[in-house]
Amino acid sequence: MSLLVTGSIGLDTVQTPHGTVSDVLGGSAVYFALAASLFTRVRMVGAVGEDFDLGRLGPLIERGVDTSGVEVRRGSRTFRWHGRYAGAMNEAETVDVKLNVLAEHAPPIPTHFRDSRFVFLANTHPVLQRQFAEQLSRADLLVCDTMNLWIENQPEELRRTLRLVHGLVLNEGEARLLTGKTNLVTAGREILRLGPRFAIIKKGEHGSLLVSADDLFLMPPYPTEQVVDPTGCGDSFAGATLGYIASRGGLDRATLRAAMARGSVVASLVVESFSVDALCRATSAEVERRLAALAEMVHFE
Amino acid sequence: MSLLVTGSIGLDTVQTPHGTVSDVLGGSAVYFALAASLFTRVRMVGAVGEDFDLGRLGPLIERGVDTSGVEVRRGSRTFRWHGRYAGAMNEAETVDVKLNVLAEHAPPIPTHFRDSRFVFLANTHPVLQRQFAEQLSRADLLVCDTMNLWIENQPEELRRTLRLVHGLVLNEGEARLLTGKTNLVTAGREILRLGPRFAIIKKGEHGSLLVSADDLFLMPPYPTEQVVDPTGCGDSFAGATLGYIASRGGLDRATLRAAMARGSVVASLVVESFSVDALCRATSAEVERRLAALAEMVHFE
Repeated sequence: MSLLVTGSIGLDTVQTPHGTVSDVLGGSAVYFALAASLFTRVRMVGAVGEDFDLGRLGPLIERGVDTSGVEVRRGSRTFRWHGRYAGAMNEAETVDVKLNVLAEHAPPIPTHFRDSRFVFLANTHPVLQRQFAEQLSRADLLVCDTMNLWIENQPEELRRTLRLVHGLVLNEGEARLLTGKTNLVTAGREILRLGPRFAIIKKGEHGSLLVSADDLFLMPPYPTEQVVDPTGCGDSFAGATLGYIASRGGLDRATLRAAMARGSVVASLVVESFSVDALCRATSAEVERRLAALAEMVHFE
Repeated sequence: MSLLVTGSIGLDTVQTPHGTVSDVLGGSAVYFALAASLFTRVRMVGAVGEDFDLGRLGPLIERGVDTSGVEVRRGSRTFRWHGRYAGAMNEAETVDVKLNVLAEHAPPIPTHFRDSRFVFLANTHPVLQRQFAEQLSRADLLVCDTMNLWIENQPEELRRTLRLVHGLVLNEGEARLLTGKTNLVTAGREILRLGPRFAIIKKGEHGSLLVSADDLFLMPPYPTEQVVDPTGCGDSFAGATLGYIASRGGLDRATLRAAMARGSVVASLVVESFSVDALCRATSAEVERRLAALAEMVHFE
């Protein structure tokens, strides 16, 4: 079943203890689409400026991502982000950000994408997320992400968006800020009261947590030792999770758990290189190998 | 098989967002012994001052803990700790500490305890840990804890102690400080180079990690929502872990994993009350119930 993602396409400059890269391919929609494409067909919606070389999307097209929803906007410039990671690299420090095209109106959703059944609305203004959602009325599963900026500055708009979506994926700091609860299980339950049927709380190097009306699931991270650059890790986690769900065509308890396990494994691949390099190289066989290893690493009697 | 613990017996004053308690029973040996006593017979070695009411150890004696290694030292005063927790309560801030009897010489290990096969040396000066270890030459399994103070100020002594022990239990910050590695799997492997056959790295609300020559195990925490006071959580985790190992009489890969699962579950009970209240009320049936629930909460396909 087709999966649609709306999100950013950007050029990143990233500094980590392992080195620095400049103007590399990044953005939430890019990481999400590449990760999801390991499991299903993906439709991508996003906007770039006329400074963007569309050839950069080659690796996505090779993996079957439909990029016909990528708008090249005349007179605009592409989103650029400059971030830095230190220490355990759990959080990025933004050195500089140029929203450029992202600060303008949202890209249109092509007519031939309107029948998408599975949808991920990557982080952006909650009003834009709602505008996207309203154009995707045939979606069986709408999942969104958000960030501190909107939780703090657009709480009412965000609440309206949360009433529309079926799932919310966010990190632990965001979950605490959104709900005012420090305990993450309690925070997850509070999120369910805001609308979503499930909340996936990402804990960086500590894995993730699923809270839904009928489940509580603890997903440890696949423990890679080679953490080069965590950029895109969360969006890739979401991409693999939703990609697997779409590939199964529906959402039950076991599928959501299995999907998060794929998310955890794919996120572990992403962090092993700068930009999308490791994600482009990733194979289903490697995902399966890590999945089996992870299942073994959490087993006890 | 008998399990011996050396550690502190103290009177704690603790402030958390849930309230304040004063001069309640605490100390690493107390939490460890109570937790371990859910699984095996425990021998406790520690010193208190003449201000200590031995009646306070009643709950330990009821659970079969042999307290004949508790020295009441004339002219000395009992260890007192005053700590405060805020936010997610992952770390205590020490408001005040009076080492009192702990700053003097170590208590003797009674002759009838010298044949102990399983031993836990709770956090203290690494020279004292070594003196204890040398008196317990029949131990099949020697495990110790440590803290930042010794890692920073007694690195050589600590290294000597680590060459003597079979296992090290410590928290993630200590593991990073000891090894200079931010990645916890890498830190665990570095610890193995210092002597121990296994390292258990505790991550507070995020669970724990086992690194040994033949295993890598991810232990998520039992997700309690009722976190009242985390004091003693780490020592109780160690107590239940070692208690289970001692009850099985030996240490293989599956036993160590199963033991850590018991540790995780018992730690989740400890945090649900101040002091040792919840630990004293804990039953094997409740431990088994949580174990089954935890196994279900980490399962994926």
